[in-house]
Amino acid sequence: MEYTKNFDVRNGRNLTMLVDFYELTMGNGYLESDIGNKIAYFDMFFRRVPDGGGYCIMAGVQQVIEYLSNLKFSKDDVEYLKSKNIFSKEFLDYLENFQFSCDVWAVPEGNPVFPNEPLITVKGPAIQAQFIETMILLTINHQTLIATKANRICRAAEGKSVMEFGSRRAQGYDGAIYGARAAAIGGCSSTACAIAEQMFGIPAIGTMAHSWIQLFPTEYESFKAWADVYPDNCILLIDTYNVLKSGLPNAIKVFNEVLIPKGYRPKGIRIDSGDITYLSKKCREILDAEGFSDVKIIVSNSLDEFIIRDVLSQGAHIDSFGVGERLITAKSEPVFGGVYKLAAVEDNSGNIVAKIKISENEEKITNPGFKKIYRIFDKAENKAIADLITLNDEVIDENEPIEIFDPVFTWKKKKIKEYYVKELMVQIFDKGQLVYESPEVMDIREIVKQETERMWPEVLRFENPHTYYVDLSKKLWDLKQELLHKYSSNYEE
Amino acid sequence: MEYTKNFDVRNGRNLTMLVDFYELTMGNGYLESDIGNKIAYFDMFFRRVPDGGGYCIMAGVQQVIEYLSNLKFSKDDVEYLKSKNIFSKEFLDYLENFQFSCDVWAVPEGNPVFPNEPLITVKGPAIQAQFIETMILLTINHQTLIATKANRICRAAEGKSVMEFGSRRAQGYDGAIYGARAAAIGGCSSTACAIAEQMFGIPAIGTMAHSWIQLFPTEYESFKAWADVYPDNCILLIDTYNVLKSGLPNAIKVFNEVLIPKGYRPKGIRIDSGDITYLSKKCREILDAEGFSDVKIIVSNSLDEFIIRDVLSQGAHIDSFGVGERLITAKSEPVFGGVYKLAAVEDNSGNIVAKIKISENEEKITNPGFKKIYRIFDKAENKAIADLITLNDEVIDENEPIEIFDPVFTWKKKKIKEYYVKELMVQIFDKGQLVYESPEVMDIREIVKQETERMWPEVLRFENPHTYYVDLSKKLWDLKQELLHKYSSNYEE
Repeated sequence: MEYTKNFDVRNGRNLTMLVDFYELTMGNGYLESDIGNKIAYFDMFFRRVPDGGGYCIMAGVQQVIEYLSNLKFSKDDVEYLKSKNIFSKEFLDYLENFQFSCDVWAVPEGNPVFPNEPLITVKGPAIQAQFIETMILLTINHQTLIATKANRICRAAEGKSVMEFGSRRAQGYDGAIYGARAAAIGGCSSTACAIAEQMFGIPAIGTMAHSWIQLFPTEYESFKAWADVYPDNCILLIDTYNVLKSGLPNAIKVFNEVLIPKGYRPKGIRIDSGDITYLSKKCREILDAEGFSDVKIIVSNSLDEFIIRDVLSQGAHIDSFGVGERLITAKSEPVFGGVYKLAAVEDNSGNIVAKIKISENEEKITNPGFKKIYRIFDKAENKAIADLITLNDEVIDENEPIEIFDPVFTWKKKKIKEYYVKELMVQIFDKGQLVYESPEVMDIREIVKQETERMWPEVLRFENPHTYYVDLSKKLWDLKQELLHKYSSNYEE
Repeated sequence: MEYTKNFDVRNGRNLTMLVDFYELTMGNGYLESDIGNKIAYFDMFFRRVPDGGGYCIMAGVQQVIEYLSNLKFSKDDVEYLKSKNIFSKEFLDYLENFQFSCDVWAVPEGNPVFPNEPLITVKGPAIQAQFIETMILLTINHQTLIATKANRICRAAEGKSVMEFGSRRAQGYDGAIYGARAAAIGGCSSTACAIAEQMFGIPAIGTMAHSWIQLFPTEYESFKAWADVYPDNCILLIDTYNVLKSGLPNAIKVFNEVLIPKGYRPKGIRIDSGDITYLSKKCREILDAEGFSDVKIIVSNSLDEFIIRDVLSQGAHIDSFGVGERLITAKSEPVFGGVYKLAAVEDNSGNIVAKIKISENEEKITNPGFKKIYRIFDKAENKAIADLITLNDEVIDENEPIEIFDPVFTWKKKKIKEYYVKELMVQIFDKGQLVYESPEVMDIREIVKQETERMWPEVLRFENPHTYYVDLSKKLWDLKQELLHKYSSNYEE
């Protein structure tokens, strides 16, 4: 019998009311002001890569889809809102009969993404497009943060497997569950979280805690009991008392006395404390000398990309890393600052009127209009050269050379000849109907591998990366300048 | 009609399988090794207060209760585990007929708690007490982290109200939902998250985003429309274009032209960017001069306890703070390192055999045995002097003086006379039956106020606090020494 995947859908969990209250006061206000059904365009984007990195890994689209597919206000939700005594009957009726009708475009999960380009664009009635702000941000901010962190850690591990161990230190249940999902997308090969395998098919793994060893009279007896129960997958935790004087000798004794006579090979040892570089080298030496060169060494204990790089550069003999709290919370930088901003509205004749949010802080100025993104690849090298944000109706003729230029230092220009382009965003909802099917999580993980492979290594460094170009088309740049001048003249001294 | 509170219970969400896979491999192993029903005692505790603070605020007990009350393996869960091909039929049958039967004690939510004292103690069959490790840690680690951070921020705000604004930057949906809960416990007076009011009764508040203003032809028109819809609760966001040249003048115009003639008083203005000290002073001056000294100034934008302290010390005129990403992720230290360790087992005659986890790292050594905590208060001052961890059968006679001593520097002694004690932990489950009723969230918030009031201010500082004493009774200290000597002699050179 097959078990059912996707727990949340199975349980019918509805997150409609996980919304900032101001989306509701605004929604009510839009209706009252007769602009509730005005067509608005919103972009979700971010401004800065966490940890000074060069790229992020897009993640969370599947959960945005689940949320949007289940948007529905229950009678209870409406009663609650009624109890606030500030909403009109028209608004409450609208919610009770809510029918999601927006168009939504998104960069598919697993793609490297960069600051200031839209990751998600929503077009629809202002009241609806506004309402979904909180959940889109929450979902993409969280999963993109963790997928990006995981990718950094996996790059540092240089192809050795990285296991996600973070559930107990996550920020809430979904921090653990969707954190495990995003970690797998970013490159982790497995998770310690059972429900993450049920829901997403990420291989769940686990052996023993120190309490297993302590519950037996001696470490040796605890190892022997384990080998009896799991002879074909015997991995022993050897640091409860003393790795080299007790744990490893007891493990080898059990390998020789229990497993080998029964015809099994031991699988591994795990070290969860101490100087892992020194201990892993010593253990490797001893295991090899005892005829166990096939036994893997697994290491955990507050690891991150920097510690992994360090221990590997010091010659540690490690086959596999278990990474917990620093991955599942993105400890070094636990906030992904994605924002959701109005980019355009339609006037009564259906013409798109671009909108811009200006700010004294230049990097907070938005890109106006209904847009799309072309990723430009070098034909010979098959590497991405730049992303070009254009207005939605712009088409690129790959037979013509293309000139890109820096949006601030506009004299920095580049003419590209032998290239091809890929449109980065795909439509996921068409007038409220789902028109996209998400890949499985472990397939998204493969997309990450393929797509990072198409980036120059200089962009992928986890310290001091090259800045990847995200440029604007001439048409979009002109539009932006026009709006900037218009608004600045409105508010000059 | 009343709306239903407590969304997760309503939806029957079951988090049984949110568990580290090794709890399952160990559980199966315990059964196979005939120690599944051996009675074990586990303590959940932490070792260090985040951010160098002096205390933490206990939070999350209600969610531990919900989890334990709903522990149940569905047919689907069992099918999934069966598909792994490593679990015995006996174990799978055990899960299918799972009946939670542990005793559980916890420090009630809202109490200040300190390193190395048990926050939760579980007594029960090894297989069960082990299984619930992940969810107990995940729940208490998350909520205690956020409640503690919120309490720091609210202390910095010196009685001015703090609103939790973090949903969009939280780490997952529960990061937002239970983060809002923990933030209210820690002292926030309201939340921007609608579902947090539905579930926990935390007042949800919200006005407008910049997009409201942008959707109208001019800022003035957008303010006027808002005042028309919400005349009795009019708070205007004034930093979309320019606070002093545009936002505030337009707001005052609308106050005078729309609200006052209708007989309403405006409620507030909100500033979300720029130099908030300078802007708040200027706005206060202008509002006062225009006869709006009752209009509140609300400020947001990447605030935390340090920025709030700074702007207040610089004389900012702020009535209310909206705090988002730095609170909801505990950005300055986003991991709460609670652990769950074996403290004792019962032998076949029901005698308690204390267990210790030793480590070369002294602070990682555990306190053995089945324990409880007395909080000792000075009678005259009604302030807490110290916590005393004792074995569970120890009783304190308040009529006798009590001598406490530092567990490391044992010559540091203190004799206390006029005191009274409070037992800190209460039983929440008795042989699997719930025997405790949680207070409402906003009542727990009052407990925090009362109980922090009973701490010396020196302990509550958010930088360089005094260390609060957590001492061991003589009997517990002796037991610990005995075990330390026993194990160290086992593993000496």
